[in-house]
Amino acid sequence: MTKTKIDVTLSATRKEKPKSDQLEFGRVFTDHMFVMDYSPAKGWHDPKIVPYEPITLSPASMVFHYGQTVFEGLKAYRTKEDKVLLFRPEKNMERLNLSNDRLCIPRIDGEFVIEALKQLVSIEKDWIPTAEGTSLYIRPFIIPTEYYLGVAPSKFYRFMIILSPVGSYYKEGIHPVKIYVENHYVRAVEGGTGKAKTGGNYASSLRAQEEAAQKGYSQVLWLDGVEKKYIEEVGSMNIFFKINGEVVTPEVNGSILEGVTRKSILELLKSWETPVSERKISMEEVYQAYKDGQLEEAFGTGTAAVISPIGEFLYDDNKIVINNGETGELSKKLYDTLTGIQKGTKQDPFNWVTEVK
Amino acid sequence: MTKTKIDVTLSATRKEKPKSDQLEFGRVFTDHMFVMDYSPAKGWHDPKIVPYEPITLSPASMVFHYGQTVFEGLKAYRTKEDKVLLFRPEKNMERLNLSNDRLCIPRIDGEFVIEALKQLVSIEKDWIPTAEGTSLYIRPFIIPTEYYLGVAPSKFYRFMIILSPVGSYYKEGIHPVKIYVENHYVRAVEGGTGKAKTGGNYASSLRAQEEAAQKGYSQVLWLDGVEKKYIEEVGSMNIFFKINGEVVTPEVNGSILEGVTRKSILELLKSWETPVSERKISMEEVYQAYKDGQLEEAFGTGTAAVISPIGEFLYDDNKIVINNGETGELSKKLYDTLTGIQKGTKQDPFNWVTEVK
Ligand SMILES: Cc1ncc(COP(=O)(O)O)c(C=O)c1O
Ligand SMILES: Cc1ncc(COP(=O)(O)O)c(C=O)c1O
Repeated sequence: MTKTKIDVTLSATRKEKPKSDQLEFGRVFTDHMFVMDYSPAKGWHDPKIVPYEPITLSPASMVFHYGQTVFEGLKAYRTKEDKVLLFRPEKNMERLNLSNDRLCIPRIDGEFVIEALKQLVSIEKDWIPTAEGTSLYIRPFIIPTEYYLGVAPSKFYRFMIILSPVGSYYKEGIHPVKIYVENHYVRAVEGGTGKAKTGGNYASSLRAQEEAAQKGYSQVLWLDGVEKKYIEEVGSMNIFFKINGEVVTPEVNGSILEGVTRKSILELLKSWETPVSERKISMEEVYQAYKDGQLEEAFGTGTAAVISPIGEFLYDDNKIVINNGETGELSKKLYDTLTGIQKGTKQDPFNWVTEVK
Repeated sequence: MTKTKIDVTLSATRKEKPKSDQLEFGRVFTDHMFVMDYSPAKGWHDPKIVPYEPITLSPASMVFHYGQTVFEGLKAYRTKEDKVLLFRPEKNMERLNLSNDRLCIPRIDGEFVIEALKQLVSIEKDWIPTAEGTSLYIRPFIIPTEYYLGVAPSKFYRFMIILSPVGSYYKEGIHPVKIYVENHYVRAVEGGTGKAKTGGNYASSLRAQEEAAQKGYSQVLWLDGVEKKYIEEVGSMNIFFKINGEVVTPEVNGSILEGVTRKSILELLKSWETPVSERKISMEEVYQAYKDGQLEEAFGTGTAAVISPIGEFLYDDNKIVINNGETGELSKKLYDTLTGIQKGTKQDPFNWVTEVK
């Protein structure tokens, strides 16, 4: 597979690119996409870059019925020197295969897909915005394409990569968000699909998110599905707390998504010799730390928002206001360091960044 | 909405119909389908019956990414007198709206959809097979159609109904199935989406089903996600046990799907004055009943298979063989009664059946 040639068909027309200051998240797509199909006889085959165009599927296609989908999300950045950088794409490919395993989808060859991704991004280089906070969001995803109404893994799949120039994920930018601690709905439980990046995890989160929004909170914080006690993660971010000088994040436990940003932040903090631990942490412990005046910062981490400081939690009827609702020092330092590495303005001691030539 | 006219466009060509004895489940679809769209401005609008044809969607359509889908499954039967009967379609519409609520999808008008369904089925009447065990499977489903990569409910949706002439769901027909009691993977947990008919619940079941199949078991029995102790349901069936003369089925608890077949069987058993209870039941209790020689029958219930007797469970390393692996008397009586009512050969004292004129 790795040596397969990628067939390229360029689009005859080019769309108008959005202005840098008008970028939203995930609304506009570039001129081309990558496509590759799977069949039992050929495996993953026929990889190609083609004009961005609609998909045509039978109404009986399994993707419309049984949710057997997986996806990834990463970004390409354009530096001042006009270089194009990817951030740890190999981690996304590892996670994609982990999701594939959970959903009974055949594994992809990560190295080959990164090559394809680079080729696609370099064709679309002019689409990568350069302004502060902007980037090119990359969405690899796999859908089942067999036409069959029966609960079984599909025999046929389509893998695609689409690209979208984006501004900040949260309209608020790097300002702190307000988060509702969810005590009724559950996102995932051990033995379920929580650690995979599959559509159903997001579908199940919508209702809680909508109810939280009605109360004025932009995201929900999920607790474990068994005891509704231990902290899991936020909508599309992992979560960190700074308590009395120590940084704590929930351990990878089978029900949370293991974020690439999370992993990178843990490595950064260790390199700074900041005390940090991955462990079980209950909402009660966070609330107690708050009451004791030891809850110094809280922030979410994810590709879309990078670092998202948390200004307030609503926990049952208790408002937990953190750092006066302002961005904490550590959150800011992590944001600046990580975005600096991603944008090539800061040293990359960990070799996280891959250049697209 | 209820008074909206349904626009009908008939297909210029007709497909060849499969032979009665060659029917599989969910592989062949009829000549027409029902389609209706939703937008925030118009609500559900533009209902129409059109030739069965592919759907064309942007690769950024939310259905490919975030799993916000719901569906239903029911059947139309053709009687000896050439009447066409539907079985309790209003129950499926109620459940569809319950699924919609959970998934943040706008409710549909159940009465109107049943009208549309009847019109579609009557156009496709010739597709309804008549042989024993055959029927026309009806699949209403809703997909999100907005083009947006962000975790939020879609603003636009498409509702569709497609039809498939089917034989028996299990290749084995009404013969008993062997079931693996799942002790690692979890299907759903309270607070999650278990009680809704949404794709993610089925996607999450595939891996367990595949592992069970490798061990020679055709389906898995799910236990509760919290303690892995209480019985929930089987792949796409609810489950019943007959223990020492009493019929027991797990109560509706927020994480199992409330089957229309389950409901009907409870009503039938009550009318027969058979002792029956809906309650929590642990696998340990079932195993103990087996060891005590009191586990008389077990069977799954669902639209696809109607009644599916269970001949064996594998519970940890223990084989629980029921009724010598043969179909029990009660299972058979329920199957005959229910299929008799559905096919119009038996009295319908509950008014479950609706004729399509
Ligand atoms: C549920 C969930 N948790 C965490 C994350 C953060 O992961 P990453 O840092 O790889 O973007 C994401 C986003 O991808 C997510 O969807
Ligand atoms: C998970 C699940 N449980 C139970 C059932 C049985 O429901 P019904 O009897 O309405 O077909 C189904 C099938 O629809 C199902 O998918």
